[in-house]
Amino acid sequence: MDEETAGEKEIPTLWEQRDHSVEHVDEGMLIMQVNLDDSSPEWLAYVLEQCMRAGANDVHFLPVTMKKSRPGTLLQVMCYQSAAEAIKTILFSETTTFGIRTFPVACHRLARRFATAQTQWGEVQVKLGYHRGKRVQVAPEYAVCAQLAEAAQVPLKQVYQEAIRLAVEKVL
Amino acid sequence: MDEETAGEKEIPTLWEQRDHSVEHVDEGMLIMQVNLDDSSPEWLAYVLEQCMRAGANDVHFLPVTMKKSRPGTLLQVMCYQSAAEAIKTILFSETTTFGIRTFPVACHRLARRFATAQTQWGEVQVKLGYHRGKRVQVAPEYAVCAQLAEAAQVPLKQVYQEAIRLAVEKVL
Amino acid sequence: MDEETAGEKEIPTLWEQRDHSVEHVDEGMLIMQVNLDDSSPEWLAYVLEQCMRAGANDVHFLPVTMKKSRPGTLLQVMCYQSAAEAIKTILFSETTTFGIRTFPVACHRLARRFATAQTQWGEVQVKLGYHRGKRVQVAPEYAVCAQLAEAAQVPLKQVYQEAIRLAVEKVL
Amino acid sequence: MDEETAGEKEIPTLWEQRDHSVEHVDEGMLIMQVNLDDSSPEWLAYVLEQCMRAGANDVHFLPVTMKKSRPGTLLQVMCYQSAAEAIKTILFSETTTFGIRTFPVACHRLARRFATAQTQWGEVQVKLGYHRGKRVQVAPEYAVCAQLAEAAQVPLKQVYQEAIRLAVEKVL
Amino acid sequence: MDEETAGEKEIPTLWEQRDHSVEHVDEGMLIMQVNLDDSSPEWLAYVLEQCMRAGANDVHFLPVTMKKSRPGTLLQVMCYQSAAEAIKTILFSETTTFGIRTFPVACHRLARRFATAQTQWGEVQVKLGYHRGKRVQVAPEYAVCAQLAEAAQVPLKQVYQEAIRLAVEKVL
Amino acid sequence: MDEETAGEKEIPTLWEQRDHSVEHVDEGMLIMQVNLDDSSPEWLAYVLEQCMRAGANDVHFLPVTMKKSRPGTLLQVMCYQSAAEAIKTILFSETTTFGIRTFPVACHRLARRFATAQTQWGEVQVKLGYHRGKRVQVAPEYAVCAQLAEAAQVPLKQVYQEAIRLAVEKVL
Repeated sequence: MDEETAGEKEIPTLWEQRDHSVEHVDEGMLIMQVNLDDSSPEWLAYVLEQCMRAGANDVHFLPVTMKKSRPGTLLQVMCYQSAAEAIKTILFSETTTFGIRTFPVACHRLARRFATAQTQWGEVQVKLGYHRGKRVQVAPEYAVCAQLAEAAQVPLKQVYQEAIRLAVEKVL
Repeated sequence: MDEETAGEKEIPTLWEQRDHSVEHVDEGMLIMQVNLDDSSPEWLAYVLEQCMRAGANDVHFLPVTMKKSRPGTLLQVMCYQSAAEAIKTILFSETTTFGIRTFPVACHRLARRFATAQTQWGEVQVKLGYHRGKRVQVAPEYAVCAQLAEAAQVPLKQVYQEAIRLAVEKVL
Repeated sequence: MDEETAGEKEIPTLWEQRDHSVEHVDEGMLIMQVNLDDSSPEWLAYVLEQCMRAGANDVHFLPVTMKKSRPGTLLQVMCYQSAAEAIKTILFSETTTFGIRTFPVACHRLARRFATAQTQWGEVQVKLGYHRGKRVQVAPEYAVCAQLAEAAQVPLKQVYQEAIRLAVEKVL
Repeated sequence: MDEETAGEKEIPTLWEQRDHSVEHVDEGMLIMQVNLDDSSPEWLAYVLEQCMRAGANDVHFLPVTMKKSRPGTLLQVMCYQSAAEAIKTILFSETTTFGIRTFPVACHRLARRFATAQTQWGEVQVKLGYHRGKRVQVAPEYAVCAQLAEAAQVPLKQVYQEAIRLAVEKVL
Repeated sequence: MDEETAGEKEIPTLWEQRDHSVEHVDEGMLIMQVNLDDSSPEWLAYVLEQCMRAGANDVHFLPVTMKKSRPGTLLQVMCYQSAAEAIKTILFSETTTFGIRTFPVACHRLARRFATAQTQWGEVQVKLGYHRGKRVQVAPEYAVCAQLAEAAQVPLKQVYQEAIRLAVEKVL
Repeated sequence: MDEETAGEKEIPTLWEQRDHSVEHVDEGMLIMQVNLDDSSPEWLAYVLEQCMRAGANDVHFLPVTMKKSRPGTLLQVMCYQSAAEAIKTILFSETTTFGIRTFPVACHRLARRFATAQTQWGEVQVKLGYHRGKRVQVAPEYAVCAQLAEAAQVPLKQVYQEAIRLAVEKVL
């Protein structure tokens, strides 16, 4: 790691930042946790979608061993403070929980830019991430890659590798 | 979601609240985490019980992949600040850890009431949860349902469904 | 490993063996698997108990990521062929599954003997396991150790270590 | 469990049975397992969909701790022997594996029938499962329930409970 | 998928095949499973290494929720029949189990070849996999990539992408 | 638990304490979390090592079910504030994430001392942990035990049990 480079640029700290073109630390976020020992997994996948629509930044499930030998689920949501009430209402209505735990988190986010890779199977948008001015991420958009892979009957991994290769060449 | 309804009632924030008849946000809580790579699962189940007796609100286990290929366990406890010291002593005595991580969490809890459902197999207590004045949870008590299901040789899920149906009709 | 010793004793293969005093390979066993994406964990813990009572040798739950983002559970039961029908009826009645997968397994079981360890907190039964005539396992009985640990207010792990130490000395 | 009832009806064993109106044990099935320590989860979700389209009966992922501290994934597919070659080609093309494990399994499947529940929010198809002539499962169709719940802005769990209640009344 | 191509080449079935230059199905393999509720994860990582040295083809751990709320581990080993006895002795000696489940599996293995990619950071060996004569896998060797990445202070993922790109160009 | 004893000794709270000979609560720590749905497990094991070298106190992986049916990984790092920037640069460079969540945690650490156990197979260093002046942990060093066990061809668990027994006798 280049400590000197690491010190060069200051990463700004912001409150509920939504402009992703600049690297920043967002302080206005929350993690919510719900432990579920009596919800059907079918309902939980529906909850995930509802929370995403209500503005959650991320929703995921962790497997847990709970008291009385129950193989339960820990539902974790990350969201802005401003979306918290709406998401809590979804969690209380759609899961079986009587309580929601919350704690604040900061989120350090890379600067994001976008490039387009012209693969032999079609155009793929690629998201690029920059840390202290240096490109560290090259992420082809899943949905487009999957569509092209299916249409052309080529492996998805091949479409990804080609899109990454082209994007790297282009933005270098 | 009804945003207007959601705004109508104020949810009070309290410190170590133990009256569960009113919806509230409890600020006086802690999460404790312990990473275990050299404890027997038999002991961990015992720890769970000891922590519950010492006043923990919840104890559960998450599977983790740790350094040196160890398939370990992350033990997570939620408790009030006032029970923290007693629980730490249990964790240090009964597990193999040299450190306990803690961080504060708020817990938003529904208002709770209880109803009784008269099923054909016997009486079942049902816990009801209210969010902003609206009933969102109907939870038959597990231990009673299990006992009735076994005695009558009917599926547990049938006892649950019947208890929920009757409780909903009654408290409507 | 001592390959020569390993070859000395022949391990008999038996069909639905229930005499555990001799090391043997039991051929008459089945694994049942059920994938669950719409069962409450509360019900599953009940299923575990019901299956054990109906003669299952082991029941456990594995976390699975299923189609449509469902955080489901794979329930696995190991049992003798002779208990299979009774266990299937429990699984169909108490879970939400429409299908049960089964495949035969052999189970290589150690010869078992029992010893008693006189610890300072009370008597503990210890199960010993023998492979090709050599002692390889020393397992204090959980329920007794837990009871003694609680009564004497000593860590459970200390009771285990003492019981193992005494049993090893005694049967050497 | 009613052992007498359990003995009354013979469950036929069939090879690659696709008629689900009769309870049966299907012998012509396979489980495939692939251990993955270098595949992106994005690709794996795509593999799941491709396998389902190629005729897999079920595809799911289990978390595994692998050698060299790798938090990998065990991909498991259940399919008919007749679909095995097509699915293997997908697994080899779309994942990063050099080997696929297979073993035969029998699948005991309930007799299936369908009912329609007229809920206040719309019509829901319900799948019913019968074991030895007795109804043991009542499963509302997820996609329809989710659609109705969203349209009417009611909790999904409420739509499920109502659909189950109505289906049970109707088919009794 | 190209069904015609898929039919062209016959995949031979062999017993304990160790020549990996030809695609084949190996019938002489076993899966062993051990459920552990009283072993330290530190010991299990050691078991993994010991089994690999004794000839196991793969060893991995799955998290399980067991009876009495125990967060246990399912240890799974894949090996040839000829290595089974040596591995069983390790499992009985080094874990706390009293029984080992086994069942036979077939393993369909790709034809393997090797190529060398000359990256800017050094030479990387790449393993190629062929299914019915078509290249489907390109896997740079981890240990070498990790060493080069560390030495040159470049991200490991970049070394992988470059090695894959060069290997694909070369063997095309 | 002895509440009186528990109250006797005050546990000091310190900021980035590195002297482990005294029991203390360290306030200057952070947890970092990264959710990964497009990283290869091979790379993640490398990330673990890199983070440990850069001063992380702990790194581990939790399995998660993510949106779009992805079987992802939650990478969790615990470190001092002073090591945070260096570790963030590793996470951004070596994984595929565009964001890192952080939140502060306190870590209650036991007083540590070391003893040496003279086993029949060689010398083993044992780490002892003290809570409020009472010995609660006795942890033989893994690397040495593993080496002795291998050299002497005795089970690792036996070396552990002997080292614990001797250390307890000695420091009593």
